[in-house]
Amino acid sequence: MAAEIFYWQRRVQFYETDLMGIVHHSNYIRFFEEARVAWAQSHGILDYQKPETASHLAVLETRCRHLKPCFFGDDLKVQVQVKMEGVRIFFQYRIENTTQQNFVAVGMSSHAPLNKELKPIRPGREWKSILENEQWTETWL
Amino acid sequence: MAAEIFYWQRRVQFYETDLMGIVHHSNYIRFFEEARVAWAQSHGILDYQKPETASHLAVLETRCRHLKPCFFGDDLKVQVQVKMEGVRIFFQYRIENTTQQNFVAVGMSSHAPLNKELKPIRPGREWKSILENEQWTETWL
Amino acid sequence: MAAEIFYWQRRVQFYETDLMGIVHHSNYIRFFEEARVAWAQSHGILDYQKPETASHLAVLETRCRHLKPCFFGDDLKVQVQVKMEGVRIFFQYRIENTTQQNFVAVGMSSHAPLNKELKPIRPGREWKSILENEQWTETWL
Amino acid sequence: MAAEIFYWQRRVQFYETDLMGIVHHSNYIRFFEEARVAWAQSHGILDYQKPETASHLAVLETRCRHLKPCFFGDDLKVQVQVKMEGVRIFFQYRIENTTQQNFVAVGMSSHAPLNKELKPIRPGREWKSILENEQWTETWL
Repeated sequence: MAAEIFYWQRRVQFYETDLMGIVHHSNYIRFFEEARVAWAQSHGILDYQKPETASHLAVLETRCRHLKPCFFGDDLKVQVQVKMEGVRIFFQYRIENTTQQNFVAVGMSSHAPLNKELKPIRPGREWKSILENEQWTETWL
Repeated sequence: MAAEIFYWQRRVQFYETDLMGIVHHSNYIRFFEEARVAWAQSHGILDYQKPETASHLAVLETRCRHLKPCFFGDDLKVQVQVKMEGVRIFFQYRIENTTQQNFVAVGMSSHAPLNKELKPIRPGREWKSILENEQWTETWL
Repeated sequence: MAAEIFYWQRRVQFYETDLMGIVHHSNYIRFFEEARVAWAQSHGILDYQKPETASHLAVLETRCRHLKPCFFGDDLKVQVQVKMEGVRIFFQYRIENTTQQNFVAVGMSSHAPLNKELKPIRPGREWKSILENEQWTETWL
Repeated sequence: MAAEIFYWQRRVQFYETDLMGIVHHSNYIRFFEEARVAWAQSHGILDYQKPETASHLAVLETRCRHLKPCFFGDDLKVQVQVKMEGVRIFFQYRIENTTQQNFVAVGMSSHAPLNKELKPIRPGREWKSILENEQWTETWL
């Protein structure tokens, strides 16, 4: 069975640019979060009606490698892949600029699930069954 | 002939919240800009391929009145109206939270068109013909 | 007795600029907040060790009038004045650019004190005694 | 001769927190930039009067590892180290929370110098002479 390919799409806003005329590099970490949240919501892990579910995944590390600049009004398509290693959840991201027709960045983030008291815990069974159907190709970064 | 009603829609992101658990108030000014840009692009005033067209409308003033908080994951619908008075362009905005089913904010911004040297100029003929078809109901603010 | 003049000083950061090469207008609302927080902390109303004290002042309205652009690396000096009218607290702000030696913006915000359940309440006695010593000159906006 | 230890200090702002009550992770990339800019300005590489000098260092990669959360009002001290390898400039950062008395994050960024046409070039002689006096201890990340 073919694995699902998950994308998040959005347009670059004026306030996301800097004086070089390009998207400020800190915003890529926010684009990654947007894509991660959309993935988690589409897989039933995150429930907007229960904001604490969004708090249940601490950010341990982020990385971003910039390949090309992107510009005001450009349409971006963020591809997401997810895997589990031990007690850690890993996301990787690849951002395609469909306006300029190139790849602008690749990145990753690692995470620890938290319980209601915000203490790190082992990923629950819901993660295991979801990640069985996820594909992790070569590491993009 | 019925006037067009222009809306911009978007979802509240995690990074837009603050420690009160609600959208930080400074982000509403960014939501207004998103809606203004989308209006200008849909009316042919702003061309993403010519970023200088986005720079041709200086911000003179912004106002925002907050009616209700809004939350992570809420879906927002920003209604936009535009008028010209003398050499100024006025936008007004009304943000509806379609998730919570209430109005969260009303606001306005005033602007001066700029020429290529970023000097204020009278709004060109393209503004007049576009604004003839726009409706400005009672002032929301 | 001369009233105290309260200032908040800070330098414009690279990530606060936009593709016009100037500070993005939404950031002024953040500069106002920085100055308001510094004022509240210096007057004993806000205690960083009790973050809920920062949540006890809801933002009802913000306004900003832009006089001049400001630029990466410019040093800003935000003057703050505060008054109470009925159950509302009003702040006004005037931002001087000490690098360019001009005034870049004036603005205001209005607020309602909240109790621990985040319900609006009348400003407590601490506000009255503090505001007795505050000066509100002509409205800058 | 003892090498200089460079620090950048700043306080966490309210608008930098998120609904978990802590600083949003994307802001650390901005704290790194603040420290990098302050270092470059103090070493004569960046001149605020010539904003193009700020554009002459493209961001190729960023990484951040989070050790502890930090909170509204906390005072942060960002230590910076810089080295050159081939045609790349590397910065590493370590953020100490002097309020909570712990280290909150370590990170790095790599950069390529650009010429006036924004094409990558070899680091000029000014970099070599400056970096001779810089210390790079073990890699923090």
